[in-house]
Amino acid sequence: MVEAAGVMRAVRLTGHGGTEVLEHAQVPIPRPHAGEVLVRVASVALNNTDVWTRQGAYGLPGDSQALAGWRGPIDFPRIQGADICGYVESVGSDVAADLVRRRVLIDPAIYETADDDAHPVGLLGSERDGGYAQYVIAPADHVYDVVASELTDDQLACLPTAYGTALGMIERGRVSSGETVLVSGASGGVGLALVQIARARGARVLAISSGSKLGPVEAAGAHAMIDRAQSIEDQVRAAAPGGIDAALDVVAGDLLNQGISLLREGGRWIVAGALDHYRLEVDVRRLYLHNRQIIGSSMHTPAHFRALAGLARSAEVHPVVAEMFDLSDAAHAQEALERREHVGKLILHP
Amino acid sequence: MVEAAGVMRAVRLTGHGGTEVLEHAQVPIPRPHAGEVLVRVASVALNNTDVWTRQGAYGLPGDSQALAGWRGPIDFPRIQGADICGYVESVGSDVAADLVRRRVLIDPAIYETADDDAHPVGLLGSERDGGYAQYVIAPADHVYDVVASELTDDQLACLPTAYGTALGMIERGRVSSGETVLVSGASGGVGLALVQIARARGARVLAISSGSKLGPVEAAGAHAMIDRAQSIEDQVRAAAPGGIDAALDVVAGDLLNQGISLLREGGRWIVAGALDHYRLEVDVRRLYLHNRQIIGSSMHTPAHFRALAGLARSAEVHPVVAEMFDLSDAAHAQEALERREHVGKLILHP
Repeated sequence: MVEAAGVMRAVRLTGHGGTEVLEHAQVPIPRPHAGEVLVRVASVALNNTDVWTRQGAYGLPGDSQALAGWRGPIDFPRIQGADICGYVESVGSDVAADLVRRRVLIDPAIYETADDDAHPVGLLGSERDGGYAQYVIAPADHVYDVVASELTDDQLACLPTAYGTALGMIERGRVSSGETVLVSGASGGVGLALVQIARARGARVLAISSGSKLGPVEAAGAHAMIDRAQSIEDQVRAAAPGGIDAALDVVAGDLLNQGISLLREGGRWIVAGALDHYRLEVDVRRLYLHNRQIIGSSMHTPAHFRALAGLARSAEVHPVVAEMFDLSDAAHAQEALERREHVGKLILHP
Repeated sequence: MVEAAGVMRAVRLTGHGGTEVLEHAQVPIPRPHAGEVLVRVASVALNNTDVWTRQGAYGLPGDSQALAGWRGPIDFPRIQGADICGYVESVGSDVAADLVRRRVLIDPAIYETADDDAHPVGLLGSERDGGYAQYVIAPADHVYDVVASELTDDQLACLPTAYGTALGMIERGRVSSGETVLVSGASGGVGLALVQIARARGARVLAISSGSKLGPVEAAGAHAMIDRAQSIEDQVRAAAPGGIDAALDVVAGDLLNQGISLLREGGRWIVAGALDHYRLEVDVRRLYLHNRQIIGSSMHTPAHFRALAGLARSAEVHPVVAEMFDLSDAAHAQEALERREHVGKLILHP
């Protein structure tokens, strides 16, 4: 609900720090310029990126400890939130008016070029204002009609970053049918998406999780569970004696440093996050003598997102909503994300 | 010349160590079994692999300091030498007799599978006896007819490992026309092959070398030289302000650790050796946030070698012979290779 004419509620990042830097504000409703649309936010999902951007946990080239967003300094105040399902409220010039009132999924990436395989160099909620608000501006060509999807607004909001990142990892890692893949952080948003998409591609999925999360991850489609409380190496070697074809990893740290020898000849380690530490320390001979690859993967390409919108429309993916919060509880939601006791995605309702 | 009936001269590795472990011996001429051929060695080229295998400089998984060959323990005594141009002397059963007396280039790889894109898991001169000898045994399907090539025996012997490794790096790194690539160790056998093949593919080649080697490397086809005596980073940034598309690297060490940020978004660092140290120490965020890849590359595939044999037949490559030694001078030749004062390949004549 709009509080006063032309004004909306939003949660803004005022600097890097703990959740105290999340500020509740009344700000003007932005106006769509040419080529843009104004979207009323129905549901916005949280990502690790939100926490890491708030903390400034990305470092800078030459300064690992620097406080920065993933692409460098953040322009504060900044409204966070990349993953938005909403309804088009109005459109700028040059945009078809029949978009108005449609339910849409927003591609949160800002791309380097106009190519179909362009690299993301910015993100809604980081390099421009995102969806921790009642309204958000998006480029019209980043908005995908999902009116016909059987998924709920909350489920759709789970998709862009988590499933986009997962699709990007699987595509860049060339995961194919019959291969054995290891998924780390499998109870998280990206992890569950990796399990579902890799399985749908015909891969055999070994998923790392622990405790009470083992059951839900297996139910999401993992073929075998690797218990993080025991030796990961022993369990993976038992499950894949010839080595794994690929690792789909958002954890990095010791798992990556010690796990590289779990890859078979020509195997690929695809890394898209560093939930553990970010120091890659590997004997480079263990890479090159075995034709192994470490493939960094950030988000998705336009082609990947178009494929994802197709999966959303046909409801071929099954995002798991862990918990919903009111926008005013954004700080509590980020704290819950940091505790990692949930399975699936955390959602805010503006 | 065979010294006595059924006996040949050979240089064998008797253990890991300095050149004193190279033993000159009279050994029986091996006999080709079914599916094999006996080749009279006309020319055998040296590779860094020969030195590293002699030193045991490859380490083992979990023990970087262990003395070992590239695939693990070496079965001593072992005749070294992977790169052989020679003449078929006799053939085993199941092999066409018209191969006899033909000039051939030998694919030195032992492959994991029979696939065209199989990974090498062994090497002539390491996992089986090689060409530091008057005769060598090879599988018949690893022998390529080069009777019609305009290249000399010595030039042909330069090709298998150096050009095979270079082709493998360029293929696995998906180097394409219009891209800017950085070549390290550009005066060496692999380096010169990289310069030639990358240029022939339409890439713009920045080549790292130093001192008196700068001229010969530029003459081999580099578009711009990067002087190792000055700041590599500054020179590369000046030559490629938007970043390089790929690095083709046999040096690793500090160059790789500090150079990863020279890659553009989506850039690839292809590593096939560690002339510098082997400790890969990179902030993994600098990889994944920019979709960068580190691609380990070891030798070639059967498909790559077939392509290389085609280049050899049509003399489309121009290997550079630096110096020739008699087989009895194998130790001096390896010492010269370690001094790295030459440009091109060192050759032994049995």
